[in-house]
Amino acid sequence: MRAVTLPSPGGPEALVLAEVPDAVAGPGEVVVDVVATAVNRADLLQRRGFYDPPKGASPYPGLECSGRISALGEGVAGWAVGDEVCALLSGGGYAEKVAVPVGQLLPVPAGVSLLHAAGLPEVACTVWSNVVDLARLQVGEHLLVHGGTSGIGTMATQLAHRRGAIVHVTVGSPEKATAALQLGATTAVLYKEQDFVEAVREATSGHGADVVLDNMGAAYLPRNVQVLATGGRLVVIGMQGGIKGELDLATLLAKRASVHATSLRARPLPEKAAIVAGVLADVWPAVEEGDVVPVVDRVLPLEQAGEAHQVLEDSTHVGKVLLQVS
Amino acid sequence: MRAVTLPSPGGPEALVLAEVPDAVAGPGEVVVDVVATAVNRADLLQRRGFYDPPKGASPYPGLECSGRISALGEGVAGWAVGDEVCALLSGGGYAEKVAVPVGQLLPVPAGVSLLHAAGLPEVACTVWSNVVDLARLQVGEHLLVHGGTSGIGTMATQLAHRRGAIVHVTVGSPEKATAALQLGATTAVLYKEQDFVEAVREATSGHGADVVLDNMGAAYLPRNVQVLATGGRLVVIGMQGGIKGELDLATLLAKRASVHATSLRARPLPEKAAIVAGVLADVWPAVEEGDVVPVVDRVLPLEQAGEAHQVLEDSTHVGKVLLQVS
Repeated sequence: MRAVTLPSPGGPEALVLAEVPDAVAGPGEVVVDVVATAVNRADLLQRRGFYDPPKGASPYPGLECSGRISALGEGVAGWAVGDEVCALLSGGGYAEKVAVPVGQLLPVPAGVSLLHAAGLPEVACTVWSNVVDLARLQVGEHLLVHGGTSGIGTMATQLAHRRGAIVHVTVGSPEKATAALQLGATTAVLYKEQDFVEAVREATSGHGADVVLDNMGAAYLPRNVQVLATGGRLVVIGMQGGIKGELDLATLLAKRASVHATSLRARPLPEKAAIVAGVLADVWPAVEEGDVVPVVDRVLPLEQAGEAHQVLEDSTHVGKVLLQVS
Repeated sequence: MRAVTLPSPGGPEALVLAEVPDAVAGPGEVVVDVVATAVNRADLLQRRGFYDPPKGASPYPGLECSGRISALGEGVAGWAVGDEVCALLSGGGYAEKVAVPVGQLLPVPAGVSLLHAAGLPEVACTVWSNVVDLARLQVGEHLLVHGGTSGIGTMATQLAHRRGAIVHVTVGSPEKATAALQLGATTAVLYKEQDFVEAVREATSGHGADVVLDNMGAAYLPRNVQVLATGGRLVVIGMQGGIKGELDLATLLAKRASVHATSLRARPLPEKAAIVAGVLADVWPAVEEGDVVPVVDRVLPLEQAGEAHQVLEDSTHVGKVLLQVS
């Protein structure tokens, strides 16, 4: 099969399409013939050599895909060759075939094309596991999402809005603000022009954010704690702004608040399967009823994986950048 | 009535016994004629002017007491004049009488003297709300408690041990280590001689602490994050080592861990009542069955509140320092 390989770390040019041995289904796995995969920020880190795949994972990038099941491993039940699926992966999506543990398979939601389904698993699992399962966002609560038009941002905005929360986002341009408001955000803060703490306090009449979903890490940590409401939960899922930040424990204590940091990729299989089951129960109905739509910025052929990475580096996109494999 | 007042902030000498107007029961409150109160570290902060009582609270120190109900406010049911009780207070325990919202009253557990019951409410509510309710310590999990022989430490050790967790504590002297081990701790780390991260890793075969109950704040933050197990919860309830610390988000994220900070005193009444109800259901049976005993370092008369504060300043005590009022 063909796969995008990483002979050595580097810029987008480090991604090299090559002929490699076919993926094979182990026990409890299926092989998916990939129709499309999607680019995640973790892929950029992996390409630069900063995010090695977990033990046992494919060495190729790609944390999600859509496609058709072409082979069943030992002990697999409930799935058949030919089934159209999408899947959460621990790697290997940038390839013609990928082996997937059955707990990470999802049916393609009604109303979504097999192509566009490639961009759903990672954002749906990330947002559901952090905003719904971990932070327990409630009806009427205020959610602040940084990077409101990223893949994560567009999913978080739509899902939280659908669940009856009030969504505030930060974005980098007026065009992105418009896109975020159309997806259900109540407030879109242009972070280059306005302090998000001040803007969110104003938008919430001083209440603050009950939940913050953050991809900036250290750079935003002090202000994320400031913007929290009493009982607020800050969930850090990315560290684009650095790793070590200053935590004001007195403010955290006065608010009886918490800071969580999580990732999806390194979790043990049973935890991933539980998250996928939660997504199927809680997110797929929202997609099938049209309240949550896959937001796709563009689709490029797998051969242009480097260009796709450049789009994310430039942060000009709204929603997911997909790579079509077949 | 007589009460210990704070005419101006300062050292232990700032505590001045004076004649003040009697406490009066508001709606939903009772007056308790205080038999004893206990010294908490928050009282020392309040005395130094760093911890003002919450709005509506008594200006006098004292976050818990035992005594007898002497008057019922409007709408109080289920309690009678003469009932022996202990209570969680938002202030005012260093006095002959104190008004208490009924949600903060507890019966004196069978087998505990009315005097010794004065030292139970604050530690029981703090430990239960943080270790059981918030951090959800499970059977077989590892709990690290800093200050293992403090009032909080002695309660946390006994309660967690009773609930089937494995308890590790830090202490300042070999005598305190012996006391902690007698209360059910598996490991007592002499923090002046040994790094607690290394000691707890060794004691847990590399697993780390699933829950850390911390009173040191900033000074311990980096090492508390290091010592956490995967999925670990750090709960900060004191900041004796400073307020602003460095948080390593990469480590937190790799462990899918969390940092919480809480306090009891400023919570709204319904939250306090829910905690008191949890203590009655979960902690009182453990006390009545003898698995959790009130650990009392010494009892001093109310007139010696200053000396009692000095004992906590010197940190030579094991368990609670009580003040006998009548």
